[in-house]
Amino acid sequence: MASNSFGNLFRITTWGESHGKAIGVVIDGCPAGLEISDEEINAELALRAPGRTAYTTPRKESDIGEILSGVFEGKTTGAPICIMIRNKDQDSSKYEPIKDLLRPGHANYTYLQKYGIFDYRGGGRSSARETACRVAAGAVARKLLKHFNVTLAAFLKQVGTVVADPATADLIALREATYADPVFCPDPKSSAAIIASIEQAKLEGDSLGGVVEFLASIPVGLGDPVYAKLEASLAYAMMSLPATKGFEMGSGFKAASMKGSEHNDEFTSEEGRVETKTNFAGGTLGGISNGMPLVGRVAFKPTSSIRKPQQTLDTAGEKKAFVLPEGSRHDPCVTIRAVPIVEAMVAIVLADALLLNRSSKL
Amino acid sequence: MASNSFGNLFRITTWGESHGKAIGVVIDGCPAGLEISDEEINAELALRAPGRTAYTTPRKESDIGEILSGVFEGKTTGAPICIMIRNKDQDSSKYEPIKDLLRPGHANYTYLQKYGIFDYRGGGRSSARETACRVAAGAVARKLLKHFNVTLAAFLKQVGTVVADPATADLIALREATYADPVFCPDPKSSAAIIASIEQAKLEGDSLGGVVEFLASIPVGLGDPVYAKLEASLAYAMMSLPATKGFEMGSGFKAASMKGSEHNDEFTSEEGRVETKTNFAGGTLGGISNGMPLVGRVAFKPTSSIRKPQQTLDTAGEKKAFVLPEGSRHDPCVTIRAVPIVEAMVAIVLADALLLNRSSKL
Amino acid sequence: MASNSFGNLFRITTWGESHGKAIGVVIDGCPAGLEISDEEINAELALRAPGRTAYTTPRKESDIGEILSGVFEGKTTGAPICIMIRNKDQDSSKYEPIKDLLRPGHANYTYLQKYGIFDYRGGGRSSARETACRVAAGAVARKLLKHFNVTLAAFLKQVGTVVADPATADLIALREATYADPVFCPDPKSSAAIIASIEQAKLEGDSLGGVVEFLASIPVGLGDPVYAKLEASLAYAMMSLPATKGFEMGSGFKAASMKGSEHNDEFTSEEGRVETKTNFAGGTLGGISNGMPLVGRVAFKPTSSIRKPQQTLDTAGEKKAFVLPEGSRHDPCVTIRAVPIVEAMVAIVLADALLLNRSSKL
Amino acid sequence: MASNSFGNLFRITTWGESHGKAIGVVIDGCPAGLEISDEEINAELALRAPGRTAYTTPRKESDIGEILSGVFEGKTTGAPICIMIRNKDQDSSKYEPIKDLLRPGHANYTYLQKYGIFDYRGGGRSSARETACRVAAGAVARKLLKHFNVTLAAFLKQVGTVVADPATADLIALREATYADPVFCPDPKSSAAIIASIEQAKLEGDSLGGVVEFLASIPVGLGDPVYAKLEASLAYAMMSLPATKGFEMGSGFKAASMKGSEHNDEFTSEEGRVETKTNFAGGTLGGISNGMPLVGRVAFKPTSSIRKPQQTLDTAGEKKAFVLPEGSRHDPCVTIRAVPIVEAMVAIVLADALLLNRSSKL
Repeated sequence: MASNSFGNLFRITTWGESHGKAIGVVIDGCPAGLEISDEEINAELALRAPGRTAYTTPRKESDIGEILSGVFEGKTTGAPICIMIRNKDQDSSKYEPIKDLLRPGHANYTYLQKYGIFDYRGGGRSSARETACRVAAGAVARKLLKHFNVTLAAFLKQVGTVVADPATADLIALREATYADPVFCPDPKSSAAIIASIEQAKLEGDSLGGVVEFLASIPVGLGDPVYAKLEASLAYAMMSLPATKGFEMGSGFKAASMKGSEHNDEFTSEEGRVETKTNFAGGTLGGISNGMPLVGRVAFKPTSSIRKPQQTLDTAGEKKAFVLPEGSRHDPCVTIRAVPIVEAMVAIVLADALLLNRSSKL
Repeated sequence: MASNSFGNLFRITTWGESHGKAIGVVIDGCPAGLEISDEEINAELALRAPGRTAYTTPRKESDIGEILSGVFEGKTTGAPICIMIRNKDQDSSKYEPIKDLLRPGHANYTYLQKYGIFDYRGGGRSSARETACRVAAGAVARKLLKHFNVTLAAFLKQVGTVVADPATADLIALREATYADPVFCPDPKSSAAIIASIEQAKLEGDSLGGVVEFLASIPVGLGDPVYAKLEASLAYAMMSLPATKGFEMGSGFKAASMKGSEHNDEFTSEEGRVETKTNFAGGTLGGISNGMPLVGRVAFKPTSSIRKPQQTLDTAGEKKAFVLPEGSRHDPCVTIRAVPIVEAMVAIVLADALLLNRSSKL
Repeated sequence: MASNSFGNLFRITTWGESHGKAIGVVIDGCPAGLEISDEEINAELALRAPGRTAYTTPRKESDIGEILSGVFEGKTTGAPICIMIRNKDQDSSKYEPIKDLLRPGHANYTYLQKYGIFDYRGGGRSSARETACRVAAGAVARKLLKHFNVTLAAFLKQVGTVVADPATADLIALREATYADPVFCPDPKSSAAIIASIEQAKLEGDSLGGVVEFLASIPVGLGDPVYAKLEASLAYAMMSLPATKGFEMGSGFKAASMKGSEHNDEFTSEEGRVETKTNFAGGTLGGISNGMPLVGRVAFKPTSSIRKPQQTLDTAGEKKAFVLPEGSRHDPCVTIRAVPIVEAMVAIVLADALLLNRSSKL
Repeated sequence: MASNSFGNLFRITTWGESHGKAIGVVIDGCPAGLEISDEEINAELALRAPGRTAYTTPRKESDIGEILSGVFEGKTTGAPICIMIRNKDQDSSKYEPIKDLLRPGHANYTYLQKYGIFDYRGGGRSSARETACRVAAGAVARKLLKHFNVTLAAFLKQVGTVVADPATADLIALREATYADPVFCPDPKSSAAIIASIEQAKLEGDSLGGVVEFLASIPVGLGDPVYAKLEASLAYAMMSLPATKGFEMGSGFKAASMKGSEHNDEFTSEEGRVETKTNFAGGTLGGISNGMPLVGRVAFKPTSSIRKPQQTLDTAGEKKAFVLPEGSRHDPCVTIRAVPIVEAMVAIVLADALLLNRSSKL
C-alpha cells in the first residue's frame, strides 16, 4: 500500500515527475521541537546535485528545497513537513526521435505495460530526480539523529575493480573526506584510479557501475523483529533506489565462503561496554542493533543512458536502433551521486527505528 | 508498525517462540475461492523440516500444520487463515550451563537490551523455527500463484567456493531436481562437492555459509514504484530471514565492475513477445517486472551454533568460555533448509504484488 | 489493508469463525515487561460470555482463552501474543431448514455476494463470537493502561426509552456497580425497567436495541491529528462492532440543536490543573485528549435473530418465509453483552494512543 | 501511523497549516487512465469556499488548486497526484490580543500540551482549512466513482430543531437542489427556517450546530470485514473532520428504541434484483454494502468562534476573559460548508473500498 511512502513513525511520501512542475516530499511523524531550516536542507541537496563535479552529468538542476509546512519559528511542530523542489522548464522536444522506442535498461516499457501510459519525456516517476526528495527528507532525519548522537557516513567504495580503503574509521572525518573528494571517495589513491576509469568511459560513450558503503554509530536495540529487522528495512530502502542490484550487511556475500568459527563475532568488554572482537555481523544480531558500527554496501549498475548505439523495439514491436539524442545528459557513473542518497536513506531508516524503539519496553 | 507482519493485500502475521506451546501464522487477504488443504501445507513444511537429510540438524520437529480458520469445504472464504504448528515438549534443562551467557552470533544479547527479557531456553522469537510459519503461508501463496500460472523455484547455489550450475532452465524440472537432491542442489557435481565439505565441517564441529538462488516466471507489470519496487519487497523479505547477509538481483554485485554497454539488456521480440537478449536486470525494470525470468540470490552466513569453544561474556559482563551444551542440535549448513524458505518468501511477495497490480489501471 | 487487524503500535489481528475449530487474536506491539496471565484474560472473557445472566442467550460458550506466545515467566516479552479460544463442537444440522435463505438483518447475503461463499452454519466471521477475541486483547490493553494509571468503564445507558443515570462518577465504583448488575446497568431503577422490557420482548419473540456509554480518565495529549484523531479511532473501533448503528462523543447529536455559547466548554483551573467547566466536548479538542473525562456512546440495533416469522428470499431469488430453527439461541438484547466489548475496544484504542504519543515530542 | 494520511489503496496525505505558505494533498494509488483537470478540482473547491453565501464566513479564500504531479495529457498516470493550494498572505497581528489565551472549544491548548508548541496565529493544522485538501482529493475520487457508475450526495439535514425532508430521492437531482440552495438544504421550507435562525444567531454573535446527511448508490460487496467495515471507515472519515460530535448509519441512534421485528429489513426482489423492503440498515450488512442506498448522518457542534465574551485561562494558568478580536471571521454555522466536505470523504472511502474489493475473489 502507499507505494510512494516509506517508513512507519517517521514516514515520507514523495511525489512529482522529472518533467513536471515540481517534485516534493511530505514527512509525517517528525517529533515536534526539532530545529530545521531551508538552508540545512539545501546544503544536503547540493551534495546530490548533478553538475557538482566534472564526473557527473553537466545538467544543472537548481534543486532549491522550500519548506511549505510543519515548521514554525524554525522548529518542527509535529505537523507534516512538505518540502517542494520546483523543476526547471525543460525542452522535451529533443526526446522526439526516441519517443516511441523502448529504452534499454530503462523503465518506460514496464511503466507502459503496468499503467498503459507512455510518458516519452524522460524517466517521469522512475527518474533519479525523485531521489532529491529523499535527500531533502534525509536532511530532516539527520537532524533528528544528531539530537540522539547518532553519526553516519557513506562513500564510494568501488568502481570497476578499484576498491577503496579509507584511512579513517571516524565517521565525522570520513564524511568530510568523502565530500571533499570529486568522486566522493575518501581514499585518494582509489579516487585517482576511479577518475581515470570514468574519463575513459566518457570517451567511449560508456558507463560504469559501482558500490557505495555506509556506516553508522548507533545505540543498541534498534530494529524490530521479525520482519522489520534493521537490515531488512535498510535493504528495502536501498533496493528501492534506481539502478541498485544488490545489498549486503557486514560480511555480506563473502559469508557464503566463510566458516562459523571465523564468522562468529566473539563478545568482549571494553571499559564495561559490551563489544564484539570482529564485526562480520555489520552491527546487528537478529535484526536488532548490537552497538557495533552499522556497516553495509549497495551495488549500482552502470548507468543505462550511454552514447553507444543499441538495439531495441518501438512500441509497435518493430526492431529499431536506439541512439541517445544529441544534448541528452550523460552521467558515466551514477554511483558517485548515489553516495548522499544512500546516506539519506540510512538516516530515514534509523530515525524511524529510533522512534519505534520508544515502544519496546514499558 | 506491526513488525511481525509482512505484505499488504496478501498479508501474513506470524507468532510463537521455539520453546513455547505453538507457533503459527495468520494470512489476511487471500482471495476467496482458492482450494487449499492441510495436506498441501504439510507437504511444503516437510521440505523445510530438520532431520530430512543427513546434512541438516538431526532434531525431529513434527511440523504438522493445522488450518484453524478461513477455509470452508476445502476453499478459502476470504476470512483470515490461521495455521498453527504445535511445538513438541522440549527439555530446556540442557540450556542451564549457558543460561547467563551471551551467545556469539546469536540474538540473545540484543533481545535482552531491547526488551529487558532474557529467555535462555533457545532462540525464542529469533529462532529459525519461525520460518516454518513462512513456509506454511508460502504454501497458500504458491497455490494462489499457480492459479495465475506463475511458477517458481529456488535451489542451493553456492557453499564455500562451490557454485552450482543447474542443467535446466525449466522451473518445474528445476524444482523437482532440487528437492530430489539431499542438499537441494540440482547440479549433481556441485552437490557431491558440497556434501563433502559439509561432512568435513561436521567433523570439525564447524559450520558453512552459502547462497540460495531463486527464479520465477511471472507476468509483466508486477511491483509498485517507487518504494514498493518488486526487488525492494524481495530484499525486505529475504533480509528478514535469520542469518542472511546479502541480497542481489540479476547481475547483482557483479554490476559494479560492468559497463553499461555490456549490462543494458537490449529489447528484441520473440514471436511477437517482447523480450530482452540478456537478463542482467534479473526480471525487473524500474521496480516493475518486465516479463523476463525473475532471478535473485540470497547470502547466508555460516550457522552460529558450532561445537568449537568460543570466547564470550555473561550477562554480568564477565568473560566466559562458551561451549555448546551436549545434546544441542547442530546444523552445519542452514543454507540447505533455507531453500524452501526463500521459495516461500518469493511466493508471498509475488502473491501480494499480483493482487496489488489489480488496482494499477481503471 | 489487513482488514482483520486494528491499531498501529498496539495492533490486534483476529481470526476464526463461529463454527470453526477455534478463534483467536494476535497482539503485536505490546511493550515488554507487562505482567499478564490466562486468569486475567479469562476474567474479562467471563463478563462477555453468553448465558451469564437470564437476560442474554442461554448458549454456554466455554470461552477459555489460552496464551500461546509472547509471555515468558508471567511477563510480556515484546513478541506477538497469540490468545486462542477453542470452539465447542457444534451441531450444525439445525441450520438445515434455513441453509439456502437470506437471513434478514444478517450478513449472509452480503458475504455471499462479496466472496461467492455461503457458509450456512452460522455467522461465520460476521458472528459476534469474534468479539471474544477483542475482549481477550482488551484484557491485555487494560493491564497496559493500568500501568499508566488510566481507568475506564462502560455501562448500559439506554434500552428503548429507559435512559440510565448512574449515581457515581468514580470510574472504579461505576465499573463495579455495572458488572454487579444483571443487565450491566449501574442505575437500579433503570435496570429494573430494562429487565421488564427484556422479559416482555422474550415473551413476544422479539428483540430490543440499546446504547452503551463509555468513560475514561486519561492524560492530556492522546490522539493524532488530523485523521487519527482520538474520537475518529474510537468511532472506527465501535462501528466495526457487529450491530452498531451510531457513535457520538460528549454532546453528540444533541450538539446539532445547541448554540456555541452553550456548547463551548470554558477553561478554568482547579488547584493548578487546567479543566473545563462543562464537558460537552467529551474529553477531546481537535482530536487530542484535553484531560477531561473521555465520554462517548454507541448505539446498537435490536438483535436480528428473532422468533417472529419474517419474509425473505432464498439464494435462487424465490420468496420464502424465514423462521428461526428450533433450538437456535435467542439473545433479546445484545447490547447488554456489548458493554465489556465496548470497554475492550476503548482500552485497545487508548493503549495504542499512549504508545503513539511517545513520539510526539523530541 | 501516518496520522495525516487516510485510506488504503486510494490513499490521501494532507499537509499545510492555515497560516503557512500553502496547503496540499498527495493522492497515492489512483489508477492510471482517469481523466481529471484543475478545473474539475476547482469546481468542487468552490462549493466549500467561505464567502460563497451570506450565511458563511465572509473571508475570501482563493482556494485555487493546482495539480503538480501524477497527471499527463489530462489523465492520471498511476503516479502520486499532488494538488497544492496557496494560502493568501495574512495579517496575523490581529491575533496579538489573544496570543496567550486558551481558546474555548479550540485545539490550541491540546496542541500545546501534545507538541509543546503554541502557534497563536490561527488553527494551524487543526484549522478547518485542511478540509480544502480533502475536497480536492474528493474531486478525484468522485471522478473515479463516476467511472464505476456510483452516484452520491450530501445535504444539510438539520439545524437546531429544523429537520429537512428533501422532495427527491434521485441523487443527481438531490445534489443539484442542494448546491442551488444558499444553505445547501434541498428542502425550501426548511432552508428558509434555517436561514432565519442563522440570521438570528449572527445578530446575537452566537453560532449553531447541525447535521449533514449523505447518500450513495453503490454496488453490492463494498467494505472489508471485520475492522474495515464500510460503516467503520465512514465513521473514521467523518469523526476526523473538525467539529464533528456524532455519526450514524441508517436508523442510527433511533435503533436503540426499536424492536427487531420493526428494524429487520426483509428481503424481497424487484425485477430479479435483491432488495430490502425497508432500509434501516442504511445500506450495509455485516460491514458490506447490500446494494440498497447508503445513508448516514454526521453531527456538527456549533462553531467555537463566537462574538460573545467567554471565560478562559492564559498559558500561565491565569483566569482571563476571551473576546474574539475585531476583524476575525465568524461563521455562524459551519455545518453548511461541511456538506461538500462530507461528500468528499464519502467519495474517498468509496473509491478505496471499490479498489480493495477487486481482491476479494479469485
